Amino acid sequence: MTRAMNFNAGPAALPLPALERAREELLDFAGTGMSVMEHSHRGKEYEAVHNDAIAKLRRLLGVSESYDVLFLQGGASQQFATLPMNFLSAGQSADYVLTGAWGEKAYGEGKMVAALLGGEARVAGTSGVGDGKEKAYTQVATSVNAGASAAFVHFTSNETIHGVQYGVGHELPAVGNVPVVCDMSSDFLWRGFDVARYGVVYAGAQKNVGPSGVVVVLMHKDLVARGRKDIPKIFQYRTHSENNSLYNTPPTFGIYLIRNVLDWIDQSGGLGAVEARNRTKAAVLYGAIDRAGGFYRCPVDLDSRSVMNVVWRLPTEALEEQFVSQAKKAGMVGLKGHRSVGGIRASLYNAVESPWVDALAGFMAEFAAKNG
Amino acid sequence: MTRAMNFNAGPAALPLPALERAREELLDFAGTGMSVMEHSHRGKEYEAVHNDAIAKLRRLLGVSESYDVLFLQGGASQQFATLPMNFLSAGQSADYVLTGAWGEKAYGEGKMVAALLGGEARVAGTSGVGDGKEKAYTQVATSVNAGASAAFVHFTSNETIHGVQYGVGHELPAVGNVPVVCDMSSDFLWRGFDVARYGVVYAGAQKNVGPSGVVVVLMHKDLVARGRKDIPKIFQYRTHSENNSLYNTPPTFGIYLIRNVLDWIDQSGGLGAVEARNRTKAAVLYGAIDRAGGFYRCPVDLDSRSVMNVVWRLPTEALEEQFVSQAKKAGMVGLKGHRSVGGIRASLYNAVESPWVDALAGFMAEFAAKNG
Repeated sequence: MTRAMNFNAGPAALPLPALERAREELLDFAGTGMSVMEHSHRGKEYEAVHNDAIAKLRRLLGVSESYDVLFLQGGASQQFATLPMNFLSAGQSADYVLTGAWGEKAYGEGKMVAALLGGEARVAGTSGVGDGKEKAYTQVATSVNAGASAAFVHFTSNETIHGVQYGVGHELPAVGNVPVVCDMSSDFLWRGFDVARYGVVYAGAQKNVGPSGVVVVLMHKDLVARGRKDIPKIFQYRTHSENNSLYNTPPTFGIYLIRNVLDWIDQSGGLGAVEARNRTKAAVLYGAIDRAGGFYRCPVDLDSRSVMNVVWRLPTEALEEQFVSQAKKAGMVGLKGHRSVGGIRASLYNAVESPWVDALAGFMAEFAAKNG
Repeated sequence: MTRAMNFNAGPAALPLPALERAREELLDFAGTGMSVMEHSHRGKEYEAVHNDAIAKLRRLLGVSESYDVLFLQGGASQQFATLPMNFLSAGQSADYVLTGAWGEKAYGEGKMVAALLGGEARVAGTSGVGDGKEKAYTQVATSVNAGASAAFVHFTSNETIHGVQYGVGHELPAVGNVPVVCDMSSDFLWRGFDVARYGVVYAGAQKNVGPSGVVVVLMHKDLVARGRKDIPKIFQYRTHSENNSLYNTPPTFGIYLIRNVLDWIDQSGGLGAVEARNRTKAAVLYGAIDRAGGFYRCPVDLDSRSVMNVVWRLPTEALEEQFVSQAKKAGMVGLKGHRSVGGIRASLYNAVESPWVDALAGFMAEFAAKNG
């Protein structure tokens, strides 16, 4: 088998050793004569995996006991709804910083929840230029105007579609004493970060952490306790906190694979080494864009260029199509930009190997020479 | 490897051929050099799997185009909340038929939703004896008193914990013109059934259909269209209907495995053959209980005894513990009753092989002879 050079935005490439381990154990987990998928979520074999994944996340990111580490279902998109359902009440606002399409989606659900349950959803900062669907995002927002009675300020620290990321040239701006809620789906676990800066961090697993179907939530226990008690039990964070994410059947195989991925990060030298590799990969790719004499054009400001999702345009859409199809023939997949914005996108998550990025950069130079 | 004889209640045994196929393809799906988990949910390779699973479910169960077939996240427990959120409004009632612990849970969330969003949740029928947590369920409910303005009547057609099932001695009682909403989690796909009888059928996959992390929903399109539009988008069934369950990233690997399981059902002779095997397995096990001269006691009425989850007691809890531990030594796992009710439980889902049930019946006879 030749392994594809996979630049998918998510679901995305997984570390080969984590997959090989899953294959090895698929029919016989820990000598039990059963797949890990066939184990009860209440049995000691699965519970060991579950708790191991939580402990490893805590250790890798330095998550203190003041925070819960939860594995939930429904993806980040469901968190867009359950966060304001838990934390917004009449007389308060849920504040959103919009730096791309995903923040807009979160804000959209915030507005639905506010209209239904009381309170207000407001924009506390944006870097968008233009109106509505035409809005272009080419940088992060550097100032935030949190409401006087904001329940939280919501950020999207990396915008997967627009390729705009905090933590590269700009850190998250200050928001006063308001809890920071952050969608880190495509920004989670590619480096270490200071969890104490956040009230809530959440991330769909299918970027750097595992397969789709699990969302990882780090939530300060003060917030867990503060959540509304009059919403359905399944949507209260306290329900999952009190039950160690075993209130109902969790996506056990996904969590098992997360554990495998976390072990792989350990074996790869930890988050520091992973971060260094990721920064090198991004430098190689942005270099290939910038050295092509204008044939490739990244619309994102230098100090907001995402390390995880690199987006760029070619002179024409016809050339973009050729680029994607010729790259595919050369074994590189997942390079088509999101359908809402077009262009090219290469996602450089942890499991994307450096030689793939080198190959892509080489291909880009050739393609530019031929078509420029 | 010796395969365990797995009687887990869910997550449960999966068909060995479905798992073997997953192992075979785990690193290289359809010659793409990638795991199916690493494919984009928007790519043609994954979409083929997704649509194949839907088409196979439609064909196996004869689901007409008047119904949507949806793959959602959050398990049946999340449906307990989203069903009344979508279909209950002020002036209406959500009616629940309680024949076990899971129906009680659904009713609990119905009450939360009614208090929050308007309307009323009421009990339209129950077979429970006693009060509150002490309530015993030993039969299905044979009459239902649907409210004059009921938005739906909710059934749990098989109660996994109490081992009580409709469709064995009693079919679902009539409810007039009110849509029937049915939690079929542990009752789904062990036989064919008339979908047209239901407004909504839903089932957590981790019993007869696949791994945990996917819930299958069959919903009449009239209901989809009727759902409230003022709740968060992610919780509106129309959102998932309009996007073929691809509104946000679905649990792709779980759906892939469901596809493998559906292929296995086809290759095993279809649902008729599967049903016949299941009925034989249940007859063998209930026979082992009834032939032990009172040493084993099934609390469930003869005409409500579940084909999927067989529950029974021994003379003492100490003997029950010995039973479970000696069975485990003999290679039979998952026999401990649910922690809320105690006793013994053997789940006999599709993938539980007949020789395992024969072995269990043999073990039971020996154990009774030794300890009776």
